[in-house]
Amino acid sequence: MAYFDAASAAPLHPVARQALLASLDEGWADPARLYREGRRARLLLDAAREAAAECVGCRPDELVFTPSGTRAVHSGVAGALAGRRRVGRHLIVSAVEHSSVLHAAEVHEADGGSLTQVGVDRTGAVDPAAYAAALREDTALACLQSANHEVGTEQPVTEVAEVCRAAGVPLLVDAAQSLAWGRVEGGWSLLAGSAHKWGGPSGVGLLAVRKGVRFAPQGPGDERESGRAPGFENLPAIVAAAASLRAVRAEAAAEAARLRELTERIRARVPALVPDVEVVGDPARRLPGVVTFSCLYVDGETLLHELDRAGFSVSSGSSCTSSTLTPSHVLRAMGVLSEGNVRVSLPPGTAAEDVERFLEVLPGTVAAVREKLGAPAATETVRAAGPDLVVDALGRRCPIPVIELAKVIGDVPVGGTVRVLSDDEAARLDIPAWCEMRGQEYVGEEPADRGTAYLVRRIT
Amino acid sequence: MAYFDAASAAPLHPVARQALLASLDEGWADPARLYREGRRARLLLDAAREAAAECVGCRPDELVFTPSGTRAVHSGVAGALAGRRRVGRHLIVSAVEHSSVLHAAEVHEADGGSLTQVGVDRTGAVDPAAYAAALREDTALACLQSANHEVGTEQPVTEVAEVCRAAGVPLLVDAAQSLAWGRVEGGWSLLAGSAHKWGGPSGVGLLAVRKGVRFAPQGPGDERESGRAPGFENLPAIVAAAASLRAVRAEAAAEAARLRELTERIRARVPALVPDVEVVGDPARRLPGVVTFSCLYVDGETLLHELDRAGFSVSSGSSCTSSTLTPSHVLRAMGVLSEGNVRVSLPPGTAAEDVERFLEVLPGTVAAVREKLGAPAATETVRAAGPDLVVDALGRRCPIPVIELAKVIGDVPVGGTVRVLSDDEAARLDIPAWCEMRGQEYVGEEPADRGTAYLVRRIT
Repeated sequence: MAYFDAASAAPLHPVARQALLASLDEGWADPARLYREGRRARLLLDAAREAAAECVGCRPDELVFTPSGTRAVHSGVAGALAGRRRVGRHLIVSAVEHSSVLHAAEVHEADGGSLTQVGVDRTGAVDPAAYAAALREDTALACLQSANHEVGTEQPVTEVAEVCRAAGVPLLVDAAQSLAWGRVEGGWSLLAGSAHKWGGPSGVGLLAVRKGVRFAPQGPGDERESGRAPGFENLPAIVAAAASLRAVRAEAAAEAARLRELTERIRARVPALVPDVEVVGDPARRLPGVVTFSCLYVDGETLLHELDRAGFSVSSGSSCTSSTLTPSHVLRAMGVLSEGNVRVSLPPGTAAEDVERFLEVLPGTVAAVREKLGAPAATETVRAAGPDLVVDALGRRCPIPVIELAKVIGDVPVGGTVRVLSDDEAARLDIPAWCEMRGQEYVGEEPADRGTAYLVRRIT
Repeated sequence: MAYFDAASAAPLHPVARQALLASLDEGWADPARLYREGRRARLLLDAAREAAAECVGCRPDELVFTPSGTRAVHSGVAGALAGRRRVGRHLIVSAVEHSSVLHAAEVHEADGGSLTQVGVDRTGAVDPAAYAAALREDTALACLQSANHEVGTEQPVTEVAEVCRAAGVPLLVDAAQSLAWGRVEGGWSLLAGSAHKWGGPSGVGLLAVRKGVRFAPQGPGDERESGRAPGFENLPAIVAAAASLRAVRAEAAAEAARLRELTERIRARVPALVPDVEVVGDPARRLPGVVTFSCLYVDGETLLHELDRAGFSVSSGSSCTSSTLTPSHVLRAMGVLSEGNVRVSLPPGTAAEDVERFLEVLPGTVAAVREKLGAPAATETVRAAGPDLVVDALGRRCPIPVIELAKVIGDVPVGGTVRVLSDDEAARLDIPAWCEMRGQEYVGEEPADRGTAYLVRRIT
């Protein structure tokens, strides 16, 4: 059994476990109290803050612990926006941020604030020039992740921070995915992290706010954590979080090189082993342990289920694996195929044999799913027919619309068109992506009586 | 060494420790994922929710886990107020609620809502009739603690819930102090609790919202915990919290009887052992493990420090132990003496010998603190002087103003007055309390050139 979903949550690092156990006995009392148990708890909290600040690259008094990375982002966005309310109410985020940032942005918009989403290229990266173009007189805050959680692409944080600094706008960096690997370089203003992504326990996030950044905590507060994170400190877990961050950093360089080699194997070999696959994300500027690919004609949920049965735990941005039946907003923003999407994120310590076994198992698993769905064979027979065809895929979910398209494309002559009727949200992303992979021309979409009509012209 | 501050935080229950350790291995993955590690985590989360709901007395789907009791209160108050916004924006709280409730109320007021604080009697209890009188057409929510955290007085929750129900107003009960001892009876609508008060780990609170109560979560949310508590679940700690709640409940009846007998010893014997002491809080309707008293002519911070040196960890509502130099809002609302205030809150398992040793140590400790401060002896010599005296205690902190008053009261004839000038916030509470304890007449206060003048007439 191999757990390949470290980008969701990493198993507890042995150092975290050790520190947690030790501080269960020493760190349960209220660190605000003056008696011995309280003073002991305060010492542990102070030491954890210093260790975490050292790893983040900030001063201890700039860093507070929050109940999760999500809460760190929510508090950070709200506090920074409120702190600069007099400047304006414009917020900039990238289109591929973690949902916690996007939810905070939604609340800001619902409350009358304005929002610009900066798009990404096909690798998932933003362009610093696009941030520069989005900045306005009334921009209160910009947000950018250090690296993307679904495809692993690293963002040009240093350059975007420079652009923001020139405009006097603070930049909040969601560093959840990268903090295990190193400090976030560049002149960021606020930074959020999440302990269970680096092998710490759940229940701990961190928020750093640089001195000089205007910050007004929102909602009810108390005297804890500089007034920025109310409620009794989750102390033994905080101690474990700081200890494990230090521990993973000590191993980071060696482990990054090792995992990068393992994910490189997947990047290189999956397209060779499995027909009709698109590997997504930047091939070079990426997190060491994350690799993401999408398989044509595959139902993501069935694929995950089959991989789980084969002993591999991975995640997916396919629409059929989400409760809303829409593909991941990241894959959508990148404009890449979402069907049969698989994210492999290797935890530190992953054995090379497990990766090899995954590469052995994957082709057969994908083929079996495709066969069950009646997907077309990789090479299609050319069958001449009328110049134009209509495929009615209404009521059918991803990947069926694409499968039906692929089945009939050979039935129209070169220059002929196929019109796919679909009411599945994933088709909007996956039909153009299929065209790009297959060298066919995607003409565009138009509203139909029911659903949407997607027009494809046969080129080859 | 004896830890007598369980009302702040209880040491980890052995069952909590055990459950935490077991679920560190089984419960670190994302319970929203479909692979085996995620399904295992989901099973643990579901089981913990069922156990906690059973202890609270609600349905599992009415209960969510939050990062702390404070966050449960904040979310509960905000969500209930927003859910009934169309009814109105009036909020009722008691004057002796935990600061988390009062902070939420402050935010509501700052946001344009209206607020009624219901006062308490000298024992710290509210009168259901006062809640009835406070209810208005536009009341959106009422809040009442199940028992007070500083003096242990139990509130008439059932009666207040009945009054609220008759008016169609939901009642939120902060049950942080009592949940270890049993369910909150009566028709409450929302209930908040905090695991580290019952021997669970820190980092876990709970919020129950009865079906049918209008509730609109505020701030950014996500799909976790029914949309009411965003962020990755603090799972191993949640499992430990639920397991320990069940465990303390199994022991609750026997342990309550035992602790009640121990606190009764303190209630009865401290006034006999230490002169000039006021034991506060309801003598009968009270939490089993909490007893609070105040010592005239004593500096609370020094007393806590000396008790800590003697091996006892207690807390205090005295002004000198708070960063704001104001006495506890609870003691103020009760109108009782705040100087030299000591709260003893016994954790389950407290040994009778420790309580006996506390009773041995306390008289000498208080006497030493008084001597250092130059406090008057318990019996004052009567010295005849002019009919009126002025004591200038400006710039002197609690308990000095009261000490100075006590020193000179014998210098004026019966019927004469002492005018105490003080700029210490505690004097406003402690001078009237001293008069009541001493059988002197407190005439009232008036503004002075600097600070306030407190007028006392000698009666005996």
